[in-house]
Amino acid sequence: MAGVTVAGKTRVSSDSLVAEVLAGRTRAVARLITRAEADEAECRPALAEIYRHTGRAHVVGITGVPGSGKSTLVRALAQRVRRDGRTVAVVAIDPSSPFSGGALLGDRIRMSEIAGDPGVFIRSMATRGALGGLARATLDAVDLLDAAGFDLVIIETVGVGQDEVDVVQAAYTTVVVSAPGLGDDIQAIKAGILEIAHIHVVSKCDRADANKTITDLKNMLILGLPRDAAGAWMPSVIATSAETGEGIDDLMAAIDGHRSFLDESGGFEAQRRHIAEKRTLKIAEDIIRRRFRARHDAALDALLDQVGAREMDPHAAATRLLATLNEGSEHDQGA
Amino acid sequence: MAGVTVAGKTRVSSDSLVAEVLAGRTRAVARLITRAEADEAECRPALAEIYRHTGRAHVVGITGVPGSGKSTLVRALAQRVRRDGRTVAVVAIDPSSPFSGGALLGDRIRMSEIAGDPGVFIRSMATRGALGGLARATLDAVDLLDAAGFDLVIIETVGVGQDEVDVVQAAYTTVVVSAPGLGDDIQAIKAGILEIAHIHVVSKCDRADANKTITDLKNMLILGLPRDAAGAWMPSVIATSAETGEGIDDLMAAIDGHRSFLDESGGFEAQRRHIAEKRTLKIAEDIIRRRFRARHDAALDALLDQVGAREMDPHAAATRLLATLNEGSEHDQGA
Repeated sequence: MAGVTVAGKTRVSSDSLVAEVLAGRTRAVARLITRAEADEAECRPALAEIYRHTGRAHVVGITGVPGSGKSTLVRALAQRVRRDGRTVAVVAIDPSSPFSGGALLGDRIRMSEIAGDPGVFIRSMATRGALGGLARATLDAVDLLDAAGFDLVIIETVGVGQDEVDVVQAAYTTVVVSAPGLGDDIQAIKAGILEIAHIHVVSKCDRADANKTITDLKNMLILGLPRDAAGAWMPSVIATSAETGEGIDDLMAAIDGHRSFLDESGGFEAQRRHIAEKRTLKIAEDIIRRRFRARHDAALDALLDQVGAREMDPHAAATRLLATLNEGSEHDQGA
Repeated sequence: MAGVTVAGKTRVSSDSLVAEVLAGRTRAVARLITRAEADEAECRPALAEIYRHTGRAHVVGITGVPGSGKSTLVRALAQRVRRDGRTVAVVAIDPSSPFSGGALLGDRIRMSEIAGDPGVFIRSMATRGALGGLARATLDAVDLLDAAGFDLVIIETVGVGQDEVDVVQAAYTTVVVSAPGLGDDIQAIKAGILEIAHIHVVSKCDRADANKTITDLKNMLILGLPRDAAGAWMPSVIATSAETGEGIDDLMAAIDGHRSFLDESGGFEAQRRHIAEKRTLKIAEDIIRRRFRARHDAALDALLDQVGAREMDPHAAATRLLATLNEGSEHDQGA
């Protein structure tokens, strides 16, 4: 196996892990995800190669506000996928503590009961207090799992913040989870993500106040929620219960139904193109941020000192900065 | 007054509103905030001029997870500021519904009881489902209020999502509001913002379980939470109650104390420079996004088609794109 020697130890090169990923070896997948998270320039050519082998998996985004029960739903859905004999991977964006280094969520523990199954792969992306680059690394992880042959790849994010919404919209099918009985603040955040749903789930439908949530959602859909370019798809509302298992079969059927709709209507190509566009733009922003951080020179210092001292406004400084940032472009191509 | 005639009506130019803003006329402030929200290139030179007149107000960022009671706290703090004879403005980032166009939050209504006072200015920034540019517009609003002579400008955001955290970190003093008795998901999100606090507030301290929240925070501070470059400042933990009014005087003293610390330690200049840097970078990202969206040509279409078809990876496409985007730079300078 090809490798480079670092500090006396042979480190397997990312390029040599590509074949292992394509052969479905999850250990190689996990290693490349870790390298993608660290944003190692070394693994960029490997990820570029992996990307060419993607497009087979159905990618499903599942999002919901805190307390919506989306992690429980994802677990139930993963189990349901396995019952058909299909394999499933979950990439969860985990708002872990930046100082403890560990997740405070119970999600990982709750997930562990299906973690012994080789047809299931679960990965939490650590945000470590800095979301910059997280969207990119998450989609790199999805690519790796797609190329490794998983039938379904689920992206799970908490539905707050534009980065999280962007990530979940990189899926072909987006599921937004609502729950009855959430507070005002949460409801307002929820409203901001409802329009991205191909499928709505109302979790905790065993609760007495669930019917109101279901009715509200259905009324909103009738009134004509703005929808994305995929066109004539009419989002459905599915009631689920973690207690009784109700609705999980319906959700599975709705996800498969949405994929069939995309394939048959020709919407799939449009959506794939739309995702490519958003993703490319996001990476372009990442690159700008990296180039900016990598720059330490007197000209930049002087520019920012002027902004701090109110001698130049930040918009003028940003425009000047962009004009000079392309000089560093050769550093972004990877090793 | 200088103006341009549009559709038979004289529209006041943004440039001619600058003098009114500097004279403290809030109607002119409100108009320019609206134009900044719409990202009108026409108002860019006016905002650049306004920026030169900023730096007098103390800018305070107040953030907290949904349900932390931060809006109630902001209202109480605004009333407290007024009792000293100082003026106060609040810029709230409002996750309003993208389809109703209106806020679902009760915040605006709860705020209205102090809205009759000319020494108080309150503005909700409408996110309308798209956070891109919101951070920029919010800070433009803060500039306008600073230049108009408000003594204290409060930025209030829900503490979820990187954009919101970035905005609140553009303040000199950042207050993070925690509350007892929140769910697991919320706690995890909260953990992601604790390290940005100069001052911690535990709201709802009349609740029986508040002491645990206070103790947990204090222990975390003793264990050494990573802190920003401002240095040796030790965050305090203040217990407040909207029921009894407890802690609001302490919070006011802590905010004023932090500002004095910055002034006396020389940390103020460093923080002002740090804010200038983050803000300039954020605007550079915005400009890239705008240039990208403004571009509709066959070369870009072909590039994105290749990404969609897996013939080119999105990172390579983004790098190519950036190399060509500076061609459009003259469009970003405003009218």
